[in-house]
Amino acid sequence: MTYHVDEKDVAFNLYECLKINELTQYAAYAEQGEEFYKMVLDAALKFSQKEIDPLNKIGDEQGCTITNGQVTTPKGYKEAYKAFAENGFIGMDVSPNFGGQGLPSIVSVVANEFFTGANVPFSMYSGLTRGSAHLIEAFGTDALSKLFCEKMYNGEWAGTMCLTEPWAGSDVGALRSVAKPNSDGTFNITGSKIFISSGDHDLTSNIIHLVLARVEGDAPGTKGISLFAVPKIWVKPDGSLGEANDVACVNIEHKMGIKASSTCALNFGEKGKCRGFLVGKKSLGMRYMFQMMNEARLMCGMQGQSVAAAAYEHALRYAKERVQGGTAILLSHPDVRRNLSLCKAWVEGMRALLYKTSLIGDKAHHETDSTKKERYQNRIDLLTPICKAYCSDYGFKVTEIAMQIYGGYGYCSEYPIEQYMRDVKISSIYEGTNGIQALDFLGRKLSSKGGALFREFYEDMTAFNAGIADGHELKESSTQLQKSADTAGQVAMKFMEIGMAGDRDYPMLSATPFLELVGHITIAWHLMEQAVIADKAIKAGSTDSFYKNKVRTAKFFVAQILPNVQARAKSILSMDRAALEMEF
Amino acid sequence: MTYHVDEKDVAFNLYECLKINELTQYAAYAEQGEEFYKMVLDAALKFSQKEIDPLNKIGDEQGCTITNGQVTTPKGYKEAYKAFAENGFIGMDVSPNFGGQGLPSIVSVVANEFFTGANVPFSMYSGLTRGSAHLIEAFGTDALSKLFCEKMYNGEWAGTMCLTEPWAGSDVGALRSVAKPNSDGTFNITGSKIFISSGDHDLTSNIIHLVLARVEGDAPGTKGISLFAVPKIWVKPDGSLGEANDVACVNIEHKMGIKASSTCALNFGEKGKCRGFLVGKKSLGMRYMFQMMNEARLMCGMQGQSVAAAAYEHALRYAKERVQGGTAILLSHPDVRRNLSLCKAWVEGMRALLYKTSLIGDKAHHETDSTKKERYQNRIDLLTPICKAYCSDYGFKVTEIAMQIYGGYGYCSEYPIEQYMRDVKISSIYEGTNGIQALDFLGRKLSSKGGALFREFYEDMTAFNAGIADGHELKESSTQLQKSADTAGQVAMKFMEIGMAGDRDYPMLSATPFLELVGHITIAWHLMEQAVIADKAIKAGSTDSFYKNKVRTAKFFVAQILPNVQARAKSILSMDRAALEMEF
Repeated sequence: MTYHVDEKDVAFNLYECLKINELTQYAAYAEQGEEFYKMVLDAALKFSQKEIDPLNKIGDEQGCTITNGQVTTPKGYKEAYKAFAENGFIGMDVSPNFGGQGLPSIVSVVANEFFTGANVPFSMYSGLTRGSAHLIEAFGTDALSKLFCEKMYNGEWAGTMCLTEPWAGSDVGALRSVAKPNSDGTFNITGSKIFISSGDHDLTSNIIHLVLARVEGDAPGTKGISLFAVPKIWVKPDGSLGEANDVACVNIEHKMGIKASSTCALNFGEKGKCRGFLVGKKSLGMRYMFQMMNEARLMCGMQGQSVAAAAYEHALRYAKERVQGGTAILLSHPDVRRNLSLCKAWVEGMRALLYKTSLIGDKAHHETDSTKKERYQNRIDLLTPICKAYCSDYGFKVTEIAMQIYGGYGYCSEYPIEQYMRDVKISSIYEGTNGIQALDFLGRKLSSKGGALFREFYEDMTAFNAGIADGHELKESSTQLQKSADTAGQVAMKFMEIGMAGDRDYPMLSATPFLELVGHITIAWHLMEQAVIADKAIKAGSTDSFYKNKVRTAKFFVAQILPNVQARAKSILSMDRAALEMEF
Repeated sequence: MTYHVDEKDVAFNLYECLKINELTQYAAYAEQGEEFYKMVLDAALKFSQKEIDPLNKIGDEQGCTITNGQVTTPKGYKEAYKAFAENGFIGMDVSPNFGGQGLPSIVSVVANEFFTGANVPFSMYSGLTRGSAHLIEAFGTDALSKLFCEKMYNGEWAGTMCLTEPWAGSDVGALRSVAKPNSDGTFNITGSKIFISSGDHDLTSNIIHLVLARVEGDAPGTKGISLFAVPKIWVKPDGSLGEANDVACVNIEHKMGIKASSTCALNFGEKGKCRGFLVGKKSLGMRYMFQMMNEARLMCGMQGQSVAAAAYEHALRYAKERVQGGTAILLSHPDVRRNLSLCKAWVEGMRALLYKTSLIGDKAHHETDSTKKERYQNRIDLLTPICKAYCSDYGFKVTEIAMQIYGGYGYCSEYPIEQYMRDVKISSIYEGTNGIQALDFLGRKLSSKGGALFREFYEDMTAFNAGIADGHELKESSTQLQKSADTAGQVAMKFMEIGMAGDRDYPMLSATPFLELVGHITIAWHLMEQAVIADKAIKAGSTDSFYKNKVRTAKFFVAQILPNVQARAKSILSMDRAALEMEF
């Protein structure tokens, strides 16, 4: 039951397709390079297999418990978290100023595929800690960063993000948490938050909560919201711990999966004694939080992909190892081959998408040419909701297919698939449900900058397809891809037309199928890019089945899944309003 | 958290669409009728809500346990099973000769929607008991029926079906269980069976296992398999219980869901003292078992539909009850309306399909005109794999959508959706995985009788569409449906052509998308039939929103889901063989 990942595919992505060696052109990475990255990733994979994966089933069985307001994580989590932190895995891609490793985020993302694929709930503790520390680093004062960040990156303290309230789920602006200024510059915080991942636990000596609250008298809605760093145990100016800070964990949720991740209801200031530090400027809390949310959304996509990849590797081994009379009996069934191919295509397509998006992030960060920089950022903005929603939904789908490959055994806890399915489902829900992602994609990203984000995306794909000559092995698939891209363009134009006519409801009704439509194209494009590179290797004489499979995988996806683009387009263009008219 | 069902939709199906009153034309039902059926179903629903549903969560939490080879069911199950049996719910549709209620199976199927929707694992105990008793009744001698059936239908004893062995999953012919004739006419049974639902429990004083085994010296493969009735406790000729019959429950599975249903590994004849009665003729075991499997496959479809219906009713109430400032906030979101409409369309379409198929079964049973009888039976044979695979897969899909409607709460055990999702997943796997169903549909049903089953299906749909006049409210949707039916016909022709050319692999590779394709059309057709009836009611002056919603639902499904037919057809007609060529 060991966690496996297709190391060859990972290396193909990093060094043949994305050529991450080129990052050494940036001063920050000048001393790094392929050999170093390989060493780092090798260590991350080994740690995932030896330390994190074995805790996955134990964690699922034991779950978290709460006694007198203190959450206990499953057996072995505390020790593993300590070792994880000592390896420098929390702050891999953050500044060495605060103890980070200063790696490009692409390398951190790959390592996180391993950590997450081996154990989703375990990786959430470090993911949230890194995210919240990074937020303080980015927007807090130097003093605040100095107080918190290093101890969070080195695993001494943990972090959370506290948005949701019982009366404000997706509608964050309706929150009721209140902050009152104290004379010493801190704020007095009162409020209740729910669904707080890692809200309490026993892995670290302190937890720094990043809390959205409204300073008394500030504007209603999202505009008047500020961000506060609220330690579980008060932190004195010298960094030492003081008294408990009136943060009460009042409940933990019992969930379908990620049972080893505590999901907490927190009360701030029950006794009126909860203090917090303002992060950045007053009333800019939502803007700051969006940075963290965008990172978190990419991580949700990574959860979908990495769990799917782990499930696929297990199902593949299971199919290959069931031998009767000398033949792998399952592999001889075309329907099983179809299921394995579906898993392979989605897993590799999503991996390609997430890795590439992450590399674009590195480039956006370091690029000095403002036109290029903007184009990079545009692409990340456009693809973030697709990475989040498509990869979590199809990550779940892959676990469903993997279970069918196993048959009855897949439904049994003796094998890992059923836990994967339960664990990965959360990714479609949190950090903004996938319905919210679709609205973001259609409502914000598509229309942003006069449609520039989508236009650039379309242009790049068109240029890619134009580069494939007649007679090329992938010409026919490329023609299909371009047709689908054109269809997406027509649907986008239709949305503009409908929107201009003042109809807001119909586009919102069609947002989910539109995101799915563009998601299919995006995956097909990434698989095709890889297939073209593989085809070159074959033409150059390689007989490696890896390359041949890459070409097959792209053709398979284009033939089997890409036709869904026309189906979704037909639905959207039907102008069917039945769902709006339904009298429920 | 009470179990709810759309009683209006159930009544609309039974009395307006299917007109089940007409069954009174058959002598067996001459004394029955609408009023009686309503009374029976009302009792079944009340029992489901008051007695079965409250045990669903308890059963999930406690699961089954095994101590010294004896399985214990969760608290309350034994008492509820006794009351269930006393109400005559086990043998509703079987002969009064053995204590059955003699109801048409359509009424039993509706009751089973309630039982199953309220609690899948609970309903499995009675479902398997009814199925195995019915098999003895159909194929056993009168003496054997007399010995077993009444006590099974009245709940004193339970039943199972024992097919799978550790070395023979989907390939039943590879089984190793052996039967040796004894001098008293019984057989000595030895063998190991796994994944036996209800294989052991404490609900009844005895369990009658129907076991597939090969009589020593009989043909290998499926042809030499016989069926045996093997009691857990030996049954004396006068029906009283004797000694334990050397049937050992050695293990129970820990599963993702249906935790209150015991899934057992059974050893027969560990001490060489296990005896069984031959059921019917020697070597005809597979043929007999197929009758039970066909019934069981329809019940799998019903599990998908009924759990989906229960999940939808909860999600609908949740969406309607979340009120902010006087408006149902979730219902105001087009994306939520889309999700609710998807659930509604699938739930109602699958209900219409399963009810109608069941009524066709009643007609096939009683019809005396042999041409009509054969046509009825053809339809059941064609639709059985679709009912099983499509309804279980889309039943699961509906629970996924229902969870998205709930957001984070849907992932929490406090609400019922996550259990529904876990419980219903098994229906895609057992009784032949959905991959097996697709092969059955394409390999057996499509080509059966020179393609007559599919041709009749196509003819009936074409006649339905031809009956919708120009200018009719549903004309455009009907045109789309006919186009899809024509596409299905073309794809079927293509399969014949490929098969004639000697290519077996490609059709097998395309079996799953083909079943899905025909499944979409089947659901669309059933929704359209209901919409036409609803439209007539509207034209006759009804202003009931129920009827208006029926028309909307059909239009919605045709616009949103039916385009998938063209996508699947395109995939199949692409002749893409990449999955066959993949080097895994």
